[in-house]
Amino acid sequence: MTPRINSQRLWASILDSAAIGATSNGGLDRVSLSDADHAVRDWFGQECLAAGCTVTVDDMGNMFARRCGRQSGHPPILIGSHLDSQPSGGRFDGVLGVLAALEVVRTLNDYQVETAHPLEVVNWTNEEGTRFPPAMFASGVFAGVRTKDQAYATRDHDGRTFGAELERIGYRGPETCGDHPLAGYCELHIEQGPVLESAQRQIGVVTGVQGMRWYDLEMRGATGHAGTTPMHLRQDAMLGAARAIEAFHRIAVNQDDTVVVTTGAVKAEPGSRNVIAGRTVVTVDMRHPDTVRLNTLEEAFHNEVGKIANDLGLQARLERIWASDPVAFDARCIDAVRASAAAEGYTSLDMMSGAGHDAVNIALRAPTSMIFVPCAEGISHNEAEHIEPADAAAGAQVLLGTVLRLDEVLHTR
Amino acid sequence: MTPRINSQRLWASILDSAAIGATSNGGLDRVSLSDADHAVRDWFGQECLAAGCTVTVDDMGNMFARRCGRQSGHPPILIGSHLDSQPSGGRFDGVLGVLAALEVVRTLNDYQVETAHPLEVVNWTNEEGTRFPPAMFASGVFAGVRTKDQAYATRDHDGRTFGAELERIGYRGPETCGDHPLAGYCELHIEQGPVLESAQRQIGVVTGVQGMRWYDLEMRGATGHAGTTPMHLRQDAMLGAARAIEAFHRIAVNQDDTVVVTTGAVKAEPGSRNVIAGRTVVTVDMRHPDTVRLNTLEEAFHNEVGKIANDLGLQARLERIWASDPVAFDARCIDAVRASAAAEGYTSLDMMSGAGHDAVNIALRAPTSMIFVPCAEGISHNEAEHIEPADAAAGAQVLLGTVLRLDEVLHTR
Repeated sequence: MTPRINSQRLWASILDSAAIGATSNGGLDRVSLSDADHAVRDWFGQECLAAGCTVTVDDMGNMFARRCGRQSGHPPILIGSHLDSQPSGGRFDGVLGVLAALEVVRTLNDYQVETAHPLEVVNWTNEEGTRFPPAMFASGVFAGVRTKDQAYATRDHDGRTFGAELERIGYRGPETCGDHPLAGYCELHIEQGPVLESAQRQIGVVTGVQGMRWYDLEMRGATGHAGTTPMHLRQDAMLGAARAIEAFHRIAVNQDDTVVVTTGAVKAEPGSRNVIAGRTVVTVDMRHPDTVRLNTLEEAFHNEVGKIANDLGLQARLERIWASDPVAFDARCIDAVRASAAAEGYTSLDMMSGAGHDAVNIALRAPTSMIFVPCAEGISHNEAEHIEPADAAAGAQVLLGTVLRLDEVLHTR
Repeated sequence: MTPRINSQRLWASILDSAAIGATSNGGLDRVSLSDADHAVRDWFGQECLAAGCTVTVDDMGNMFARRCGRQSGHPPILIGSHLDSQPSGGRFDGVLGVLAALEVVRTLNDYQVETAHPLEVVNWTNEEGTRFPPAMFASGVFAGVRTKDQAYATRDHDGRTFGAELERIGYRGPETCGDHPLAGYCELHIEQGPVLESAQRQIGVVTGVQGMRWYDLEMRGATGHAGTTPMHLRQDAMLGAARAIEAFHRIAVNQDDTVVVTTGAVKAEPGSRNVIAGRTVVTVDMRHPDTVRLNTLEEAFHNEVGKIANDLGLQARLERIWASDPVAFDARCIDAVRASAAAEGYTSLDMMSGAGHDAVNIALRAPTSMIFVPCAEGISHNEAEHIEPADAAAGAQVLLGTVLRLDEVLHTR
């Protein structure tokens, strides 16, 4: 008989953790390496010890709570997420993944199930990156895409370094970050988007993380008097921006259902009510799971910008300022999630993650997948973030099933 | 034989005046009631006295330099404009109209021409309104659309009142503003737009001033994560703004060649690169000579905004925040300008003024028209403002011809 997680215990743990760094609006202020982060780490460590785990910490502050397996020589299966929050964050972002992983350990204890691999619950340091940018810094060091020296030297707004703050809270551990072995990784997380809720599915089977590209679109025309410059003599950078925004959305929607394009910020100069805008800058955020499609879209955008600029007598420049390649998760790990959801009778949806997670980095090191559960109205990074206890439980149950499947599937030498 | 203005004398006067409040970039800083305004008033008064005029000042500081006519009981024909400037203004905006009027007086003196009506050169106070808003304040008091008390109490950024500053520079005259009689008014001004230059015409026969309406277009949608919110689940206020901007321009261009619509400023909230905009505000400036057309356009805008909002799931509000009715100048005065231009062999173009001028207010009191001359690239309210001496001379010559025609046409009891 499949072990069943204890949904009430899980929810109680989440509420316990939410008391640490709680804000008056029902959210969290538990930015990385703060006193609240210190406190939640201590609490989490105690809970893990109480569940019979041994806890180790690496020199980036990543915490690993280990439950032994039959094969002590096997590298562990890692499950977890992060306990730090945005300054006005929600109670579930990251937290759910860590405490559901702890609930998996507790449930395996209850049912006296011994896995072949050791199982470890991980709390990654500084996932949010708000205080010490960028996000996912410690998992990045773990995966070798960032250096520890970079991390240690990063300063917060008050000039304090990551390294000094890590020392201060006593979480610079002895293990070298990245030396930790692992057989695989699975991260449960709230979706932080509206897709599952809208599709009325309980479980998101995350097949990878979208590629992301950021652009600045600059258009230069000519300022002019709003009253005295006829329409046909204008070079209106605002009209150019509007046409480009409309075109980007049209191209994206015509491409497929997966691409997302966001034009979240715009600047117009001189920005006066009765002066034709001589210059505009629009930010463009584009995401898609497929690099080829991203390239196709980028080319289409460039062509469209050229046409618009030509029609309006503008000079235009679409500059790519940042990019992150798509990540495809491991097929065995994805299958384990999908099979677990099906076995429990949950409705599920295969989906790409639109946001970044520690799993993006860990996927570079070991077979990885993620599980999403719905969050209300897709709201996250916000004190109003909310999930249903039943969804938290479903996620933890699927995580448990995934662990048991991975324990069989991941053939570890 | 038609008297001919002295183009070199006119240009020399313009350069003389441009030395008063000159900026290092070749422009003017001669905001109303400043020391520079004081100085240029004193200089202008002296020049008028030297041309045989008597100078009177009203209690708004408006200066009237009178050349007597045959019929001393006739009210004067007024010609002129303003000598104040924007803080970083050009050397010709307003100045040309005043000094061309003085040149008309000088030319009539040279040719010993006596007009039936007295002729007066007027310098209107505070046309620009930059220091003491709004623009055209003193001509507004003259026309009875604003009150002197309002004007006196208006404060600049340093807290000084218009009334106190007018006293300080000694230009609060004894005459009650508005009591001054007049038979008609003609104002020569630089176009402040690119139409004449683009059409390669020398003289603009200004038939009136466009009606103007200002709107704020607010669109409200929902913020969301740029990576996790699929396109079909978005309520993107930025896309709504872009569609509206595009639609307003399309509607305007399809309406006729005269309407101008400007969307010069835009605000997006939260204005973050990776967050879907939940709220946008776009400013809309619309101008047309015909109130009926303005109403038609406004209705079309409202309809379009409704459709766009409906398509995108947004809430939208197009709010009219200011309006100014169109002004039609006097047919006899317009004819006098057109006939003078034709008699001199100048190419001309009938046009509406897109900008406001003191003539808009004076038209409420007496038969009025305006003459435009080209300015380079339509640039104005800018130190780079430039006109050709030949165009200045053409404008002055047409002003002279207009005065002589009005002297016959305006049947003054």
